[in-house]
Amino acid sequence: MKITAKAPANIAFIKYWGKKDEKLRLPANGSISMNLSEVFTTTTVEFDNKLKNDTVKIDGRYVKDREKLRVVNHLERIRKIAKVKKRARVESKNNFPRGTGIASSASGFAALTLAASKAAGLNLSEKELSVLARMGSGSACRSIPDGFVEWKIGNTSGSSYAHSLHPANYWSVCDVVAIVGEKKKEVSSTRGHTIANSSPFYKTRISGMREKVSGLKKALKNKDFTKFGEIVEEDAINMHAVMMTSSPPLFYWSPETIELSLEVKSWRHKGIECYFTIDAGPNMHIICKERDVLRINRKLKNVKAVRRVIINKSAIGVRVV
Amino acid sequence: MKITAKAPANIAFIKYWGKKDEKLRLPANGSISMNLSEVFTTTTVEFDNKLKNDTVKIDGRYVKDREKLRVVNHLERIRKIAKVKKRARVESKNNFPRGTGIASSASGFAALTLAASKAAGLNLSEKELSVLARMGSGSACRSIPDGFVEWKIGNTSGSSYAHSLHPANYWSVCDVVAIVGEKKKEVSSTRGHTIANSSPFYKTRISGMREKVSGLKKALKNKDFTKFGEIVEEDAINMHAVMMTSSPPLFYWSPETIELSLEVKSWRHKGIECYFTIDAGPNMHIICKERDVLRINRKLKNVKAVRRVIINKSAIGVRVV
Repeated sequence: MKITAKAPANIAFIKYWGKKDEKLRLPANGSISMNLSEVFTTTTVEFDNKLKNDTVKIDGRYVKDREKLRVVNHLERIRKIAKVKKRARVESKNNFPRGTGIASSASGFAALTLAASKAAGLNLSEKELSVLARMGSGSACRSIPDGFVEWKIGNTSGSSYAHSLHPANYWSVCDVVAIVGEKKKEVSSTRGHTIANSSPFYKTRISGMREKVSGLKKALKNKDFTKFGEIVEEDAINMHAVMMTSSPPLFYWSPETIELSLEVKSWRHKGIECYFTIDAGPNMHIICKERDVLRINRKLKNVKAVRRVIINKSAIGVRVV
Repeated sequence: MKITAKAPANIAFIKYWGKKDEKLRLPANGSISMNLSEVFTTTTVEFDNKLKNDTVKIDGRYVKDREKLRVVNHLERIRKIAKVKKRARVESKNNFPRGTGIASSASGFAALTLAASKAAGLNLSEKELSVLARMGSGSACRSIPDGFVEWKIGNTSGSSYAHSLHPANYWSVCDVVAIVGEKKKEVSSTRGHTIANSSPFYKTRISGMREKVSGLKKALKNKDFTKFGEIVEEDAINMHAVMMTSSPPLFYWSPETIELSLEVKSWRHKGIECYFTIDAGPNMHIICKERDVLRINRKLKNVKAVRRVIINKSAIGVRVV
């Protein structure tokens, strides 16, 4: 069977940084995210007994080495569950540049998990898909369920998965992504996670996360945009403070990241309520209300460093297409 | 008597951020700095019984309100010790722009302390001058002694002062200051110190300082430039991580700060051993060996954002001129 699945990228409001258990791939803290409507990966998987090896094509190019191995390892997990021996033909397309701070591994592994498991004849539950996606790439588990999503830490592999807190149409919060860099990052987030605990501030960050997660869930529940935005912005800065004090220091910011953070603060000062968040890359995610999207978009057009703007609403999770 | 004193600004290799005792003005951690040869304040003080009030002229302009009050309060301390009633005429000149991250308050209060105490007929020891300068502005105590300086925390006002670790000619380390912004900063460092402990990372920073201070002293003693530079750069990032996670967040970085930090890392990668440090402002202090100063200066000429470069060697402390 040949199956195609489409999965959204997600933007974390409370960030995942560092693992509690490297072997079981359990995160050190719970995280909360929103699926993005306009940035996604579409992946087709077909198992074929005529194939000698798995083939993996991403954005029109056959990948190899470490990039391929990560996909093949994920196919192995699925073959093991499905008791399938056949090799697979994987073809994946992102509608956004990879390695620039938009989580391509999240949408990628979410789409791969659904497409490959269906193509292998499995009919997994949302929870099972989320657990499996997590094993490919931590934050991929959050691209499985719909809308606003929480990833609970868990104590075992089977209990560390994401679930939907609210459906996509629950709240019209937008994520306006200002793309400033399309260069691949020097240190992957996968590697970054493993050195997170080298920051002297890491333990303190982790010890405050439970409270932050419950604060954000409350703000979401009350649709309290101010509280929500404040927690989101503060957590992003907190994570980057940990990153830049780790050993070696991880600087994901570019000059444009600072420029845009100053812009966001000045717009907010002028009455356009918006907040920023930053993933492991230089792009700015500007979190705002739907009614302010066009004003912000116009303002971004005047910022020379911005190469492209992507306006996202909240979206459903992974689906077969 | 009319006395003129000249005091250098200083660059901290281990930063002072936050106070252990607000009332006694004791720092939360020990710090280490170097006096700068090319950035200084020259201050003339004359007590005059014809004056009804103190007058304070800084860079050609009579200052008032809070800016004046801080100087008048310092004169009061000195009048009290000297048992002088007369008002003073203070005239101060900086050879660099104020409020841009070069510590004008350090050189300013160091020069004021020596000029005013001499003009009031006092003949204070280096230690007494350092204690007194500290009361005007914490880091001013480090601009009193010569060369490479350590400020010990102390437990009482009288035991919190700076002393020279090594004379100015001990080691030919340079501080190449790349001026990128001449705008006054939004939050003064005086205010910043009082909110330092609102950062979740503040306690962790402080608890690691004793070890960092002794590590830097050892690197200085051994003239181990690599170890020295690594500690300097790491401590600056650590302090800014605390600043940006405080409440409200303090961002002293501009886009150019990030741009230059990336430049410094790339030069280092190419074999020019240099490290950066950043005070409470956007300017970059590039710490390098004397032999690399001209190469770095040439490279800085190609960085559009750099408005001005100041090449500093280590310098003597405050002097009557």
